[in-house]
Amino acid sequence: MDEKATSLPPLTLRTFTSRQDKSTNPMPMKFEILAEDKGTQARAGLLHTPHGVIETPVFMPVGTGGTVKGMTQDELEALGVQILLGNTYHLYLRPGHELIREAGGLHRFMSWPHPILTDSGGFQVMSLKSLGRVTEDGVWFRSHLDGSSHFLSPERAVEIQLALGSDIMMCLDECVEYPASHETLERAVGLTTRWAKRGKEQVSGAREKVSGVRCQVPGENQVPGVRCQVPGEADANSGLPLMSREGMEKNPDSLHPNAGVSDPDTWHLTPDTWHLTPDTLPLAPDTFPALFGIVQGGTDKGLRRQSAEALLDIDFEGYAVGGLAVGEPKSEMYDTVQFTAELLPRERPRYLMGVGTPEDLLEGVARGIDMFDCVMPTRNARNACAFTSQGKVILKNARYARDASPLDPSCTCVVCRRYSRRYLRHLFVTGEMLGAILATHHNLHFYLDTMRRIRQSLLFGEFAEFHGRVRSHL
Amino acid sequence: MDEKATSLPPLTLRTFTSRQDKSTNPMPMKFEILAEDKGTQARAGLLHTPHGVIETPVFMPVGTGGTVKGMTQDELEALGVQILLGNTYHLYLRPGHELIREAGGLHRFMSWPHPILTDSGGFQVMSLKSLGRVTEDGVWFRSHLDGSSHFLSPERAVEIQLALGSDIMMCLDECVEYPASHETLERAVGLTTRWAKRGKEQVSGAREKVSGVRCQVPGENQVPGVRCQVPGEADANSGLPLMSREGMEKNPDSLHPNAGVSDPDTWHLTPDTWHLTPDTLPLAPDTFPALFGIVQGGTDKGLRRQSAEALLDIDFEGYAVGGLAVGEPKSEMYDTVQFTAELLPRERPRYLMGVGTPEDLLEGVARGIDMFDCVMPTRNARNACAFTSQGKVILKNARYARDASPLDPSCTCVVCRRYSRRYLRHLFVTGEMLGAILATHHNLHFYLDTMRRIRQSLLFGEFAEFHGRVRSHL
Repeated sequence: MDEKATSLPPLTLRTFTSRQDKSTNPMPMKFEILAEDKGTQARAGLLHTPHGVIETPVFMPVGTGGTVKGMTQDELEALGVQILLGNTYHLYLRPGHELIREAGGLHRFMSWPHPILTDSGGFQVMSLKSLGRVTEDGVWFRSHLDGSSHFLSPERAVEIQLALGSDIMMCLDECVEYPASHETLERAVGLTTRWAKRGKEQVSGAREKVSGVRCQVPGENQVPGVRCQVPGEADANSGLPLMSREGMEKNPDSLHPNAGVSDPDTWHLTPDTWHLTPDTLPLAPDTFPALFGIVQGGTDKGLRRQSAEALLDIDFEGYAVGGLAVGEPKSEMYDTVQFTAELLPRERPRYLMGVGTPEDLLEGVARGIDMFDCVMPTRNARNACAFTSQGKVILKNARYARDASPLDPSCTCVVCRRYSRRYLRHLFVTGEMLGAILATHHNLHFYLDTMRRIRQSLLFGEFAEFHGRVRSHL
Repeated sequence: MDEKATSLPPLTLRTFTSRQDKSTNPMPMKFEILAEDKGTQARAGLLHTPHGVIETPVFMPVGTGGTVKGMTQDELEALGVQILLGNTYHLYLRPGHELIREAGGLHRFMSWPHPILTDSGGFQVMSLKSLGRVTEDGVWFRSHLDGSSHFLSPERAVEIQLALGSDIMMCLDECVEYPASHETLERAVGLTTRWAKRGKEQVSGAREKVSGVRCQVPGENQVPGVRCQVPGEADANSGLPLMSREGMEKNPDSLHPNAGVSDPDTWHLTPDTWHLTPDTLPLAPDTFPALFGIVQGGTDKGLRRQSAEALLDIDFEGYAVGGLAVGEPKSEMYDTVQFTAELLPRERPRYLMGVGTPEDLLEGVARGIDMFDCVMPTRNARNACAFTSQGKVILKNARYARDASPLDPSCTCVVCRRYSRRYLRHLFVTGEMLGAILATHHNLHFYLDTMRRIRQSLLFGEFAEFHGRVRSHL
């Protein structure tokens, strides 16, 4: 219900103390491994990001243009979403990364105070083939909206992601189609490596620039949109120092990119507005976004090794396996994931990009993957296709016209508890928005629940059994 | 969060006892007046319907085809929606009233265990002008979907609404355009009166047919979708008798229309499914839907009087003022509402159909109206138009591109607490569903909150002051 927060705890404020970061490569992203399966490469862990700790393995819903289509942020929180993926390409075009920087970053712009991973924009640019031209320097592309010409370089991709205030940034890479010649793959690996190096340098430069500058740290029990701290002071709960107002006024350019406030006056919150505006959402805490490198090489093991080794030399805070789920047979994808994951350091998170089905999540985890994203649960939902414990359900099918049963009898989500297949079918047949909303909710629940069960089986040392029991049902 | 209900209280079951209803016109709809304003016709009351008690004055969101566009039923409940309007025309075409009857009525079909008012379908049929042909017997019309030919008579309109299991049914009426000649208006009043009589007779016949048959009564504290009773027994909380399984098997045709179960086997709920399926939602309690007559006559007071008096002779459980907000000047509308409401009995609810703006709600209540419906808050929301305490906000406007303030600074809804105008604008500019979802939520909150404040001022004897203070802000 809509109730104004009438009483808020008083804030204890401390004096600002500057704290210089001495390290040139502070590697702020902590990744703890809590459990590892004996028979496979699967592991469960905790990934620490500027906006909170993520339990891995994790599925990241895709929030393309600053929204997971059809879901409110409240709903995403209720579903237990821990981290969203934002698409740099879409956000760069609309509303523009400068507008988002000005708004205090994507977290504040879209009112999502939890972790966000952003892609580099390269995949969209290159998958709209006719629109992109790849050079050593970067990619020229035309906007799919108005045909305007734009240039994306490894440096620019980092710049944009810094403006967005991402927690985990991705290097610009060249993702090639399947099948591709060895030459094409080799060229892409080379370019991806050189771009990764440039991306890393860009990040290091930006990090240097803001070292010593601190911004607000949200308290442990902070309720989004309700509590806030007064900038220029210390955080009431953690006692950590905050960016001083004085410091901000003197060096507006040196602000932490996640702070994203160019006008110090906007930090002044009156008691009348502080529980109402998105500006009172917690700012990014005192860490710098991480940058992940992306291993390319198609299904060629030699090239995968070459790509992985080159990226390890550059040293990233996490590594992604890219260029898969582009048409190769599933067995080749799994082989490549397994092979590539084994080349990557145990103590860094591994992210399988753009994959996949519920089965792929399970098989990916078994092969050492910690993070996944895919549009499948959300896009399929909008096309009336639901993932259930009994397989896919095509909700427009006439057989469901009189079907009083829930979408998935084994599911406990609010959609399956409240609505029938016949009602969902009616919504899709009549083109009602609620059909997409409910199916998206269910599909995300199915994906997140699958991942929760995978993780739990790992923590309880029962992954092998779970894997055997569940794989045939996904 | 999605948690299975693990423990449910045991049910105490009682033996079924038949209870014969002796009255031929039992008039089950109770309307209590709790407060009346001294200076105006405004009043606050309680309207008892088969699916619960409604606090009046009330605004009814329009759930056209079994859904309020963009809202989940959970969200409507959180917003404090007490009663929905369902469109007979749309539901008759898709999914069809027989399918809904089979599903146990519209409440169970759409999982909305609260009151529903249905219109007669006549307004849609006649407003799609080229598609309809009005005769003494009824209206011939073509489906806007496939051009198929259909006939709607006063009897048929009642039949369909009974199949939908409506709590409040509307008579088929003839609604004419503005401006219309005196002759046209007079003809419409005559036809509306004759149709009202036929509708009433149809309802009386249906009521006779089911008298003595009882169906399930939900308990006082029933949680939708979680608890259920076993049919064929007594309600655990209220102790009221339920339809016996034996009786259902013997006389499937004599079922209460709200029960809507043609196959008694579907009543059997196993412990595995009973908290999951919409079939476990409470059935309609032991009352018959109400039928409202509709006063026509345009802005002609003589004809309004003639229409109202004729309907009073027939005797309805409530009266609607129809044929307004069709283009007449606002002052004429208010005059007509005032004049017509004064002709109607104090002890029956009055419903102003299809009206209107927030201001219209206030002015309608002041003139004695208890119930309102309008697509404005929901339709405008989808077109990026929000109602706020500062007037309408057109969210696509470029001036909001960088506006960090909430949609309405005075509003306490979840949208205004969490999101900014710049974010809402971005959603509309990029065509994201979430724009429509959030604006709809806010607009409904604004309407419902306006009505809550009106009602509260009546209960506290402060309506005159409230009226004076607020009218300039709506």
